[in-house]
Amino acid sequence: MALSGLPRFLASRTLGRAAEVKAPLWLITHEISTSGPDLVTDAGSTSFRRYAKYTVFKGKAALSLEPVLPTIREVDSRSSRVFKRGCVVLKFYPAIALQKYDWKRRQVFALSPTEAGNLIALGPDESCEFLHDPSLKSSLEGQVRKSLQVSPSANDKGYFLNLMVANKIQNTNERLSISVTKAEFAVIRTILTYILPHIIGWSQARRSQLPGTASNLHKQFERRLDPASKWEN
Amino acid sequence: MALSGLPRFLASRTLGRAAEVKAPLWLITHEISTSGPDLVTDAGSTSFRRYAKYTVFKGKAALSLEPVLPTIREVDSRSSRVFKRGCVVLKFYPAIALQKYDWKRRQVFALSPTEAGNLIALGPDESCEFLHDPSLKSSLEGQVRKSLQVSPSANDKGYFLNLMVANKIQNTNERLSISVTKAEFAVIRTILTYILPHIIGWSQARRSQLPGTASNLHKQFERRLDPASKWEN
Amino acid sequence: MALSGLPRFLASRTLGRAAEVKAPLWLITHEISTSGPDLVTDAGSTSFRRYAKYTVFKGKAALSLEPVLPTIREVDSRSSRVFKRGCVVLKFYPAIALQKYDWKRRQVFALSPTEAGNLIALGPDESCEFLHDPSLKSSLEGQVRKSLQVSPSANDKGYFLNLMVANKIQNTNERLSISVTKAEFAVIRTILTYILPHIIGWSQARRSQLPGTASNLHKQFERRLDPASKWEN
Amino acid sequence: MALSGLPRFLASRTLGRAAEVKAPLWLITHEISTSGPDLVTDAGSTSFRRYAKYTVFKGKAALSLEPVLPTIREVDSRSSRVFKRGCVVLKFYPAIALQKYDWKRRQVFALSPTEAGNLIALGPDESCEFLHDPSLKSSLEGQVRKSLQVSPSANDKGYFLNLMVANKIQNTNERLSISVTKAEFAVIRTILTYILPHIIGWSQARRSQLPGTASNLHKQFERRLDPASKWEN
Repeated sequence: MALSGLPRFLASRTLGRAAEVKAPLWLITHEISTSGPDLVTDAGSTSFRRYAKYTVFKGKAALSLEPVLPTIREVDSRSSRVFKRGCVVLKFYPAIALQKYDWKRRQVFALSPTEAGNLIALGPDESCEFLHDPSLKSSLEGQVRKSLQVSPSANDKGYFLNLMVANKIQNTNERLSISVTKAEFAVIRTILTYILPHIIGWSQARRSQLPGTASNLHKQFERRLDPASKWEN
Repeated sequence: MALSGLPRFLASRTLGRAAEVKAPLWLITHEISTSGPDLVTDAGSTSFRRYAKYTVFKGKAALSLEPVLPTIREVDSRSSRVFKRGCVVLKFYPAIALQKYDWKRRQVFALSPTEAGNLIALGPDESCEFLHDPSLKSSLEGQVRKSLQVSPSANDKGYFLNLMVANKIQNTNERLSISVTKAEFAVIRTILTYILPHIIGWSQARRSQLPGTASNLHKQFERRLDPASKWEN
Repeated sequence: MALSGLPRFLASRTLGRAAEVKAPLWLITHEISTSGPDLVTDAGSTSFRRYAKYTVFKGKAALSLEPVLPTIREVDSRSSRVFKRGCVVLKFYPAIALQKYDWKRRQVFALSPTEAGNLIALGPDESCEFLHDPSLKSSLEGQVRKSLQVSPSANDKGYFLNLMVANKIQNTNERLSISVTKAEFAVIRTILTYILPHIIGWSQARRSQLPGTASNLHKQFERRLDPASKWEN
Repeated sequence: MALSGLPRFLASRTLGRAAEVKAPLWLITHEISTSGPDLVTDAGSTSFRRYAKYTVFKGKAALSLEPVLPTIREVDSRSSRVFKRGCVVLKFYPAIALQKYDWKRRQVFALSPTEAGNLIALGPDESCEFLHDPSLKSSLEGQVRKSLQVSPSANDKGYFLNLMVANKIQNTNERLSISVTKAEFAVIRTILTYILPHIIGWSQARRSQLPGTASNLHKQFERRLDPASKWEN
């Protein structure tokens, strides 16, 4: 079945009469209900899934971001730990017609915490590039290579995002580009800043009920010897 | 019934003896209890409503901001999704007398996530303008046009906010202006930054309970091939 | 009973052997248990109180900050509203001896949301001043005047905080000064940014369960007409 | 038993085939399950522990950060207070071979809230140094001295972190250095900003249920007398 593009699809379900419009589409943050298995899908688990994206629609491509939180596992009855780091999943959808995007040919790039930090701290004239190999350390290592380049756009303080995926197995070479405005990048920066403590698991931290006298806790009470702090200050 | 202005009303209910004062009124963040149906009012739903605004009172107008969170819907017993994006509602109230504002003639402008990002990233010398058509894609398209302009004020690093609403049906042309100081805009920037992840639904994200071995999850584990990272540090 | 100073008091209770030290005292964030009725104390209520402060101890004075969240009231069975704005309470304690502070002579200054925004956005070379009259609009108006001045310190990118309290009734004129380093002000800025959405009540916002078809909700769906967004982008 | 290094250990448990890789290791945020009693371990308590770290792996050393939240104690049936401040624990692990780190020789440095604020506000060309004595005010005072220096790296807007631990009792002098990139420091800055309100206990603040008429609450309602606010504005 040929699938209609993303905005049209969403528009018809959620915005009603806006189906033919260009501009409003960028403000839709829905997940595509027919997008097939998502990165946050788990095989066999019964956990409840919640979809929320920030999506930017442009002429040649659309870009969405959504968080994947870390997997926490109980080690024993007394502790749990982060078992798998979270990430922020970028999905690039190529446009196939006016306001139509091909979700089947979407390309995915999972930002690590430090890559998210890179974008958060990216200066207005700075660029960065991330290289991923989804099959690293497997027998397929080197067969698929992904590169995400972020570079400043010429005049509006926004950025170009360039995703290249070279797949030697399928002998394909996909390239998806999208420009985001300064305002859109401000949203991306803001939500990456928000999600960062969550994807490294710090929001799972809980207050400990330490007894104040335990001798093995003394290291917490290191005293500061600060020559710069004048008492008469 | 002629309605008394906003500050007087609030003052008499919540601040007692401050009813006649100008200055303190800006610090009131209450909702107006007689303001009629609010944007967050739902028709027929029994959900609990909570009102909280940040309001700036000035000589010619007052401005309030309040968040509208996204509507989340359960798709099935195993997942939910953002069904309708949230926004931040700006309300402009014209002054009709000293410290009196006409809530009946208030004008409303709903900031999208990207428009909020625009304000968050707005430089001290920058301007921006947002154009809305509340009836876009309906038979009334083009009949009502709203424009919100934000431009730097001359001397104090604050901004002017200019809302123009042209209504061809009613043949009206409303214009409401208010200046916000640098400090007030810092509050606006701070609360927009806070609310942004919430209005796109990211705060609804929950930890997934992924089994570590599911083969369709491998894409999450893309490895970084970073030529810039020297192992010798 | 003459009361010992703050650090000594706290030190003897919580840090044990550190009672005579200067430096470590600044890192104590406790409430003083004998400080008498606190601003967050309610008369007759049985609500649970939680004390948490950020405190800076210096040679001539100590300064603590603690949040007071807004009071939310149920209007009816279906809604609640912010009834009283929150604030951030600054308390200045004069030093009476080496590492001793007189909590009985403490002076209090309650930062409004916009005043907090002022400090958040304060540039490294900027100053600000806040004027309060605790008895404004009462028969005692003008009898007590408080002024808080924040100005940059000469060499370390920190700030001087100057609290003056003129009380005509008691014929007193208190002046308490403290300098905070750039690092301490970074903490203050960070926690004010954190608490701002809470003291205006935005963290009380809850997802609404809006039906998508309610006609009075159309205003939320204003469409953007953005001339700057080129579709061929 | 000779212990394998950190990345290898983690890789074998959590990333499978990535055991021999350098680059991907930095993105692991797990706790080491065999790292012995952690700083957040309490002696005798049955509270549930949760481990989550942000870890940077480099050629000569690895660095991890994890939060320790404050200990809150109930004072009586009506109130609780911060009994012990939280901190952010930095752990430095020396490399002993390619991708192997010696967790037994790790050195620990607990950042206070103000030290965290120092790092948050650290400019791109600025340095700072923190001095700690874990035995301050005990009979062992001065026997162990720790110094953490943070200074800008030459070319990439990152920082060098230098931990020196001089132990007169054991007659040892450890020195561990690690460089963090601009992106990694952006992550550190972001998570320190996030955790700061939590380690001083502000996230424990709860809404008070103040009756609006209690006379001892009047101080909260200080009115602003702001000469700079023109009403005709």
